[in-house]
Amino acid sequence: MLPQWIIEKKRDGAELDTADIRAFIAGYTDGTIPDYQMAALAMAIYFNGMNARETADLTVAMMESGKVIDPNQISGIKVDKHSTGGIGDKISIPLAPLVAACGATVPMISGRGLGITGGTLDKLESIPGYRVGLSEQEFFQTLEKVGCSMIGQTAEIAPADKKLYALRDVTATVPSIPLIVSSIMSKKMAEGIDSLVLDVKCGSGAFMKDIESARALAKGLVDTGVAMGKKVVALITDMNQPLGRAVGNALEIQESLDILSGNGPADAQGLTITLAEHMLRVAEVLDLGGGVSNPALHLQDGTALQKFRQMVACHGGDLDAGLPVASNQIPLPSPKSGYVSKADADAIGRASLLLGAGRAKTTDAIDHAVGISDLKKIGERVEEGEPLCTIHSNGHEDEAQLQQLLESAFEISDNTIEPPPLILEIVSS
Amino acid sequence: MLPQWIIEKKRDGAELDTADIRAFIAGYTDGTIPDYQMAALAMAIYFNGMNARETADLTVAMMESGKVIDPNQISGIKVDKHSTGGIGDKISIPLAPLVAACGATVPMISGRGLGITGGTLDKLESIPGYRVGLSEQEFFQTLEKVGCSMIGQTAEIAPADKKLYALRDVTATVPSIPLIVSSIMSKKMAEGIDSLVLDVKCGSGAFMKDIESARALAKGLVDTGVAMGKKVVALITDMNQPLGRAVGNALEIQESLDILSGNGPADAQGLTITLAEHMLRVAEVLDLGGGVSNPALHLQDGTALQKFRQMVACHGGDLDAGLPVASNQIPLPSPKSGYVSKADADAIGRASLLLGAGRAKTTDAIDHAVGISDLKKIGERVEEGEPLCTIHSNGHEDEAQLQQLLESAFEISDNTIEPPPLILEIVSS
Repeated sequence: MLPQWIIEKKRDGAELDTADIRAFIAGYTDGTIPDYQMAALAMAIYFNGMNARETADLTVAMMESGKVIDPNQISGIKVDKHSTGGIGDKISIPLAPLVAACGATVPMISGRGLGITGGTLDKLESIPGYRVGLSEQEFFQTLEKVGCSMIGQTAEIAPADKKLYALRDVTATVPSIPLIVSSIMSKKMAEGIDSLVLDVKCGSGAFMKDIESARALAKGLVDTGVAMGKKVVALITDMNQPLGRAVGNALEIQESLDILSGNGPADAQGLTITLAEHMLRVAEVLDLGGGVSNPALHLQDGTALQKFRQMVACHGGDLDAGLPVASNQIPLPSPKSGYVSKADADAIGRASLLLGAGRAKTTDAIDHAVGISDLKKIGERVEEGEPLCTIHSNGHEDEAQLQQLLESAFEISDNTIEPPPLILEIVSS
Repeated sequence: MLPQWIIEKKRDGAELDTADIRAFIAGYTDGTIPDYQMAALAMAIYFNGMNARETADLTVAMMESGKVIDPNQISGIKVDKHSTGGIGDKISIPLAPLVAACGATVPMISGRGLGITGGTLDKLESIPGYRVGLSEQEFFQTLEKVGCSMIGQTAEIAPADKKLYALRDVTATVPSIPLIVSSIMSKKMAEGIDSLVLDVKCGSGAFMKDIESARALAKGLVDTGVAMGKKVVALITDMNQPLGRAVGNALEIQESLDILSGNGPADAQGLTITLAEHMLRVAEVLDLGGGVSNPALHLQDGTALQKFRQMVACHGGDLDAGLPVASNQIPLPSPKSGYVSKADADAIGRASLLLGAGRAKTTDAIDHAVGISDLKKIGERVEEGEPLCTIHSNGHEDEAQLQQLLESAFEISDNTIEPPPLILEIVSS
């Protein structure tokens, strides 16, 4: 079947066969189907969607475009978590060693940040010496020794996704559930895992702004994972305010160390434990008694922190060398006394990007030291002049624009405010 | 504005600004906007359409991507006709010299056939020596001397359309009214004409199968022409059965000569006169009295045929050298006596393609001699064994497939059948 006939089929709202999808992705990967036909198909998928079977077929086809790690090459029960991305979302960093401490294996392939959303790899690289680009052998050795390893996507993993992701960015075909699902799951399913927990962010600082679209994405992810024979559960969590109190690369590593020491902000600390429990539950190794698989215990007794230190060492990183620090720490005073009623994730994310903590384009450089810390959370009491947050700056940003962004981010109410729930829904098959 | 933002705007159903459209087409023409972004935009236009203003802007942008003939370079009142294409539609060939004989100037840029639809250029090339690729100077000289000239699209005319047309073919974005309208009109409006008559074909052998879609296309064409300051009228005409009695290149040239001699089949003869009258009326030179602008008179007195012979000579063609003739003439006998109730244009078009008269791909060669003649028309009486048509073959086709196609094309009824109307609607602004 000619590629244009497959495009026409989807354009006219018909269901694509498994063979259609496999042939199209194979052709796109080897270059016999050019970008312009893939772009037309992506736009047709944007408009007419894909059902669960088509989405799973697309995911498998993209996964099989590259290397798929054989689960038998990694010992233990392999489980991973993926977040759809938000502001201050550093949870993967304390979570992977915590789950490893609980006895499961976490072979985590992470991404870089783009736009207001930070990336786990960028955060890890603020640790002096940390290498995200391990060889496959080093990755397996780290997993064997520590139980977790956090690396970047290699050229061998899902090359079709790599090509399509870049194409979608320049053809206005990013916000399509089947395309998002297949992009995430083709990479995750190539990791050699048995089960997966998804954290679908919902709110101003996330890709999905409302609960309906977050729910649709969560359902798509879970259905696809299950169709591929994995145990999968998705949490929909709030992203209207940043997660934790720190946004920025080194600042989030510091907060991750706080979480691993049992001293993190309540929301980030709580979500880390909750996600660990869900991972251990889908992996069927959870033990909430006094056994090895109780996450809260491993934060208290220091074993999770120890796992993190071991993992960093295996990646060539040196935590004792100290994290980069920005030259200026500037408090942002509250204009009045009252209760925080808004701490907008989108505005705070933009402020962090402006400071240099993120990338506007994939080719931009990152300043690991800058960002925002000591963020007040919704519901907290502040007095006039008390800092709403601390700005960490190396002096390269437009100060007026930064002030305007951060002032617009916060609202203070005279009345008491109930802290919003963090976990909105749990979606399983 | 980045190209992907313009794509996103259309994807989300918003109206594109004139500046958006101009920038996109300019970038596509000079190559700074790649095919994949144009493909994504075309698919978004397929789904969300374009209003009259956007369609006119797109037409102007595509027209201005290349050379636009200055109407002042051609003397007289310039008028043209364009048909959206059908089976046996040779009307342009007698029409242009007829209108020239009536005193208007017809600078006609025509196309080649693709699929079941024949092309005027292919038909003209069955005349030994006829050159469709005149230089601009030769084109102007022919118009000056004869009053009509029929050439092919040059590389300078609407290059953006040339690129986009090829791209649409392989990205399933052909059937979109704004894209069809801008493709037709960007070329026609570059011809230096004052007014235009459109023949929108409707039926099994046409691109538009039903009256609603034909009406939408006719309205789009007329609105765009008027928005560009031209006088335009569209006729919607029947294409459920072929036009005239001949399908195939040389066979249609012969039928065109019959029409110019006043001896053509009633439908083709009548439509030629009707279209000429509409062209002369929009051009405001019609005179249905005994003056020079009465088309029927010019068919009777031989002046239209004379014009045709002059034009062919200016193009290097030699009518006296004879037209190519196929080696076999095979009658298709009627299986029973009765009245023709179906003579399906689509099936007859496919049969003609199978004989070699057309192209399945743009790179296919054409056999000018083959085709189908002496076609019975709907409503005509036939006796059992009397030919429904004559097949002109050079023996290269699959005979069984040809038989099957042609047998399925005809139906014979015991009851009398009313010939269907040829002109269905007239659309003006």
